[in-house]
Amino acid sequence: MQKRFSLKEYKQRLKKVKTKMEDEGIDALFVSNPSSMNYLSGYDAYSFYVPQGLIVIKEQNEPHWIGRKHDANGAKLTTWIDNDNIHYYTDDYLHARDKHPMEIVANLFKKMNKHRCRVGVEMDQHYFSAKDYVTLKNELPDVEFYDATTMVSNVRMIKSNQELQYMKNAARNAEYAMQTAVNSIQKGVAENQVAADIYHAQIKGGEGIDGDYPAIVPLLLSGVKTSSPHLTWGGEVFQGNEFITLELAGVHKRYHSPLARSIKLGQPTAEEQRLETAAREGLNQALDFVQPGKTCGEVAQVWVDEVKKHGFEKDDRLGYSVGLSYPPNWGEETASIRLGDETVLQPNMTFHLISGLWEKNNGAECSETFVVTKNGCEALANFPRELIVKQENKNNIYHGY
Amino acid sequence: MQKRFSLKEYKQRLKKVKTKMEDEGIDALFVSNPSSMNYLSGYDAYSFYVPQGLIVIKEQNEPHWIGRKHDANGAKLTTWIDNDNIHYYTDDYLHARDKHPMEIVANLFKKMNKHRCRVGVEMDQHYFSAKDYVTLKNELPDVEFYDATTMVSNVRMIKSNQELQYMKNAARNAEYAMQTAVNSIQKGVAENQVAADIYHAQIKGGEGIDGDYPAIVPLLLSGVKTSSPHLTWGGEVFQGNEFITLELAGVHKRYHSPLARSIKLGQPTAEEQRLETAAREGLNQALDFVQPGKTCGEVAQVWVDEVKKHGFEKDDRLGYSVGLSYPPNWGEETASIRLGDETVLQPNMTFHLISGLWEKNNGAECSETFVVTKNGCEALANFPRELIVKQENKNNIYHGY
Repeated sequence: MQKRFSLKEYKQRLKKVKTKMEDEGIDALFVSNPSSMNYLSGYDAYSFYVPQGLIVIKEQNEPHWIGRKHDANGAKLTTWIDNDNIHYYTDDYLHARDKHPMEIVANLFKKMNKHRCRVGVEMDQHYFSAKDYVTLKNELPDVEFYDATTMVSNVRMIKSNQELQYMKNAARNAEYAMQTAVNSIQKGVAENQVAADIYHAQIKGGEGIDGDYPAIVPLLLSGVKTSSPHLTWGGEVFQGNEFITLELAGVHKRYHSPLARSIKLGQPTAEEQRLETAAREGLNQALDFVQPGKTCGEVAQVWVDEVKKHGFEKDDRLGYSVGLSYPPNWGEETASIRLGDETVLQPNMTFHLISGLWEKNNGAECSETFVVTKNGCEALANFPRELIVKQENKNNIYHGY
Repeated sequence: MQKRFSLKEYKQRLKKVKTKMEDEGIDALFVSNPSSMNYLSGYDAYSFYVPQGLIVIKEQNEPHWIGRKHDANGAKLTTWIDNDNIHYYTDDYLHARDKHPMEIVANLFKKMNKHRCRVGVEMDQHYFSAKDYVTLKNELPDVEFYDATTMVSNVRMIKSNQELQYMKNAARNAEYAMQTAVNSIQKGVAENQVAADIYHAQIKGGEGIDGDYPAIVPLLLSGVKTSSPHLTWGGEVFQGNEFITLELAGVHKRYHSPLARSIKLGQPTAEEQRLETAAREGLNQALDFVQPGKTCGEVAQVWVDEVKKHGFEKDDRLGYSVGLSYPPNWGEETASIRLGDETVLQPNMTFHLISGLWEKNNGAECSETFVVTKNGCEALANFPRELIVKQENKNNIYHGY
């Protein structure tokens, strides 16, 4: 199968990770975050619901893949690593109570003589369970474990040109999905019909660009549900006067460009306009401020100050590093745009900056995915930021923004 | 918001879990598996990518919900529990390196005087990370932790009538999505177009039944990719002679009914027919054998014996308990249909029995989701099991099965 990046690029990534391992005195690294596995090896499959990982050994040229037997064929097809480095456990280890896949992983460490050294593990992500850790620790009593949660994902923060191109393609898909949603939302249409249309657009992709499945479902919310950002749509039918928030991602080859907008079906109230204006102006001011050398915390301060002018006292996190990902999260879980985060912005970092105001009974959102450039930043999508108002005309036909 | 089950049903579930807690001598239980959270409280949101959970205290009538501040509104809207039992941590705890949400969870245990007792935690699932565990352990040094991975999910195995109705609805959606796929697969059509059509059908749902997002993406594979079950579709265009496997789920109100079939675009080869027949006959024989009192292992043995008659030596897991779920897995991760599993089948248990033969360069699948009945079992979907052959006719138009 065709690889998504050159062998040279995969090897550069591995080299960067090894430099970090050297800095932290780590001899071997167990990478179980599927996004980081893909980043280093090209491995791409929906197999992360069972234990799997890569083992990076400081003095070896290629990582090792280990996972379920059925998935080993998939590793041979999608990764650049030698078949001799593809290992597996059999199905009797799966969700069993008397044995555990990490026993097989531990055996591999022993076989490679890495059972008396310092080993990095990604302690705080969804694909390294408490039991995975305890089992590995019991099986490798002479290993000193080191929390390497962000070791690979920190390398992932700075995008290559090829990665940026995929994210720009993803942004085209985000525009297409957002426009599809705006067209689909109408009085008399059910929420799940709109969600279905959005999904169709996300997976098919816009003109000439393959889509892909998003790590987070389209967050299509209306009415009181806009007060909480992660509720999901239902089967309710739009009555024709809803205030709606929609956060979705365009995706291309697992790279995500999220985008959020607020939509009013019918005439917006003064309160809705005030809320949406505050969210949008917060976004605008924060984006204007972004440039290399500034910190994530400083960007957040600009936003906090701006929404305060509109009467909102907030100190929430309003963004995060974004790119390659798998469910359940499209954020990289490294830098956050929030007060106090001292990450210094550098060219080719990419963030989702989501200006959201979630109040007791309502909420508004406006977001962009941007890349830090030499002098500032560039929003990847091109979609008007204003509140999208869908008005019923005399012929009972709605017009898009 | 309308609850999906009666208050009585939620309370019965809680009572069953408390009985198990009593049996194991557990004073408090921390439930972080989102499916189990939903099962006990009704909580439904795509917020599980951040730490959250329910705390069940043996002597209290309602569980406590704890999660991110933004999501607390969602908990108030979707759960039956009192607002006083909704707790949260603020955004500065999110993916931070200097503090951790489990510190706030631990504080809650202390506040409720549950910091010197036996506490159950779900050690081996995606939503309780190694760091979650280590942090909780450090903060609660006098707690004796107990691995309660399957405590709630074992209760979930036996479905109520309302749950079964949702799964039957989900099966209607599975039929609809499968038929949509069969109609969509054609020479000249790209894989991601077909995947988009499937997703649309899954989310919209069949006639009169709302769909919902599946916990696993549609696994649409063709050619050599059929050799590994969890690869995902690409942008490749069907050439008109592909052997295709498709595993998907119909979903309704988070309940899943998965379904898999094999499809041939064009005339199947003798080898493809042999493979598909073995998979289908394995499924048929195993389903015929199912009845209360038999074990999962005995069902697996019937399958192993049957596919052996067709020349395939296999001892893979071929099924699992299924129902309510969230990404990344629609299985309940309790009982497995595989050799040696001693789970005794009982009425109202539901399984996905997936007869898959994954060979070096190809594969075939046929599956059903079934409920154990008084005398045997009932497949929830009604879709022909035979290999679906799509033949090009003289007018270059394809017909469905």
